[in-house]
Amino acid sequence: MTANEDWGAMASERLSAIAKASEPGPGVTRLPFGPEHEAALDLISEWMRRAGCSVSLDSAGTLIGRREGPPGAPTLLIGSHQDSVREGGAFDGIMGVALGCLALEALGAQELPFAVEVLAFADEEGVRFPTALIGPRALAGTLDPKVFEMTDRAGERLGEALRAFGGDPEKATMLARNPDEIAGYLELHIEQGPVLEAADAPLGVVTAISGIERHRVTVTGEAGHAGTVPMEMRHDALLSASDLVRGVHDMARDHGIRATVGQLTVSPNVVNAIPARVDLTIEIRAAEDAARDAVGAALGELCAGIAVETLTEIEIEKTYSQPAQACDPDLRARLAAAVEAATGAPAIELPSGATHDASAMADLCPIAMLFVRCKGGVSHNPAEEANGADMGAAVSALAEFLRRYVP
Amino acid sequence: MTANEDWGAMASERLSAIAKASEPGPGVTRLPFGPEHEAALDLISEWMRRAGCSVSLDSAGTLIGRREGPPGAPTLLIGSHQDSVREGGAFDGIMGVALGCLALEALGAQELPFAVEVLAFADEEGVRFPTALIGPRALAGTLDPKVFEMTDRAGERLGEALRAFGGDPEKATMLARNPDEIAGYLELHIEQGPVLEAADAPLGVVTAISGIERHRVTVTGEAGHAGTVPMEMRHDALLSASDLVRGVHDMARDHGIRATVGQLTVSPNVVNAIPARVDLTIEIRAAEDAARDAVGAALGELCAGIAVETLTEIEIEKTYSQPAQACDPDLRARLAAAVEAATGAPAIELPSGATHDASAMADLCPIAMLFVRCKGGVSHNPAEEANGADMGAAVSALAEFLRRYVP
Repeated sequence: MTANEDWGAMASERLSAIAKASEPGPGVTRLPFGPEHEAALDLISEWMRRAGCSVSLDSAGTLIGRREGPPGAPTLLIGSHQDSVREGGAFDGIMGVALGCLALEALGAQELPFAVEVLAFADEEGVRFPTALIGPRALAGTLDPKVFEMTDRAGERLGEALRAFGGDPEKATMLARNPDEIAGYLELHIEQGPVLEAADAPLGVVTAISGIERHRVTVTGEAGHAGTVPMEMRHDALLSASDLVRGVHDMARDHGIRATVGQLTVSPNVVNAIPARVDLTIEIRAAEDAARDAVGAALGELCAGIAVETLTEIEIEKTYSQPAQACDPDLRARLAAAVEAATGAPAIELPSGATHDASAMADLCPIAMLFVRCKGGVSHNPAEEANGADMGAAVSALAEFLRRYVP
Repeated sequence: MTANEDWGAMASERLSAIAKASEPGPGVTRLPFGPEHEAALDLISEWMRRAGCSVSLDSAGTLIGRREGPPGAPTLLIGSHQDSVREGGAFDGIMGVALGCLALEALGAQELPFAVEVLAFADEEGVRFPTALIGPRALAGTLDPKVFEMTDRAGERLGEALRAFGGDPEKATMLARNPDEIAGYLELHIEQGPVLEAADAPLGVVTAISGIERHRVTVTGEAGHAGTVPMEMRHDALLSASDLVRGVHDMARDHGIRATVGQLTVSPNVVNAIPARVDLTIEIRAAEDAARDAVGAALGELCAGIAVETLTEIEIEKTYSQPAQACDPDLRARLAAAVEAATGAPAIELPSGATHDASAMADLCPIAMLFVRCKGGVSHNPAEEANGADMGAAVSALAEFLRRYVP
């Protein structure tokens, strides 16, 4: 067994064990501030102690394992989240915490010119409460205290749940770190997509966390009898919407970004009636805001052309927008070098299409992310899987990064 | 006022009057075998008597006004239905009965070498009971007695409702006419489409009642995160379905027939998930079965090509099929000549995309249909309208047809 395989086997073992800290049902359901969270923190505390860290819970519910550095040296943060979606997998989030601890364990007693903290954030998925990222926002100083008034299904306020868990809503808003004392934030995460698998690569270095925009589209045509209206005289809202689905796809592909029509409803939705109206959503995600802006701006022209062509009306409204967070070039380059050293192959680079704790940490310090290959691209599902060898490679790459890193 | 305008004004007046034989609510709601049907038959009986007809109700609930011809001469049938959809218009069906009576009235005492019957069928829309066309099927000898067991919303059996109305389920199955004694069946009907209006023509001669086929399509892709899966690696069921909607439209247009994707549902139908599955329906209508068969048969290849292109699977299943009913060439030609004589312009020819009483009458005898221009193509709606001048032209054309016709 190589060292990679050893660390991979330990990662698999630890993730299997902590997957049992779950509500009953398929896969893993571990929400923040409940008994499953508490059970998970018991195990994570143990991982942190084995990595030579002192362990504490901050007021926002983030478990912190700290490995001291030289006096006055900056701190490098490594983290991800402990929570899952309902009936999710055993890797999303928690894997990053486990691999961070194992990388420190792999370093052993080797002294580093900086301190390291492994962070296990409480809530990234936003499943229990209609908010997320309390932990990283608290550290970045961007936490809005109003979130503590939000309630879960059972009517419990987030502030109460946090306090009962050992946190403190008032103090949570005073956790902001001094950026001068933080070297950066690294997050290891399962890819949740098929890119690394298709490239036959265990690891990938993230270029940026994609920006997101959403549009709501209403296509208005005219109902008509499917038998009595010739094709040329129709105002078919679904034909119009279909051209838009294809047009959006092609435009995103041509710009090298991602766009999705995920929701589409037809009215009256009857077998022998020409559709009178279609409502649909367009979501665009891109690692570079300029590319996203270009596609977003071109949507209007695309809709106008299709409307004329199909004798329909198309209204489009932007309902949401969030800029991309670029990963720090220096940290990226160092991660890539460490990946090459650990795997013997040049690192693949790819954007993150999903949001992560790193998105919020970007308000505090430089960020970087390392993705681990994901079986079949499947995530948020009990079948989610990263294999042991790939996780072992990630531990080795992170340990190598830490050995070489100078803040 | 020209004669056309006189007859048109009378038609408008009579249709306004009979529109009051309706359940409360917008537009006209007149179902078979209820008090509104009875009130309508009182008025229609009066129209028939003014046209010189003797009036009777047959065992299937069809009101028949008969104008005798020479002994042994065949009978020409002219008819349509008295019933409406719920909250429908004042023209669909009933207009054909009104115009038939007026054409006979316009002929006055002029002797014809054949008998004429105006038929007011009870139920063409199939709204009250889950069946339709009892009257024409009884005459054609194609009535299935099992329909009398069907019940309406209130649980009343069709057979009971017919009996209470003065009909007789047992005798209804013995009404079949002898084809040798029937010259043909003519039906005047509002177009229910936009073709005549676009052609600026008051009347149109129907070439055939379109055949219909329906297909159920299931597109299977693969769910995925809208941010993490590159466009080229997606198995997007909605992209596939969209290409199919466009492909079906173009194919129908190129073949000069009609095809409609009326129903389409997306799963999981979430803003940030690549659609995993789409269910949709395709309905094809064509005046010529060969054209419909050609398009229906080409669907498989279309689906196969799109499936390969979009990395999805498409299953298609034909769920329904009904052949076209061609109109009789001789009756068509005579109707066209009568339209030209009445309007001074060559007759427009067009298919009927919808089913009519004539569809069932085609099992008994040669059929022909005359369409009257429909405002905005709108039907099955309180806004449904044929104008007085157009109805007057139809009365004149039908009277002219009767004057010239030799069986």
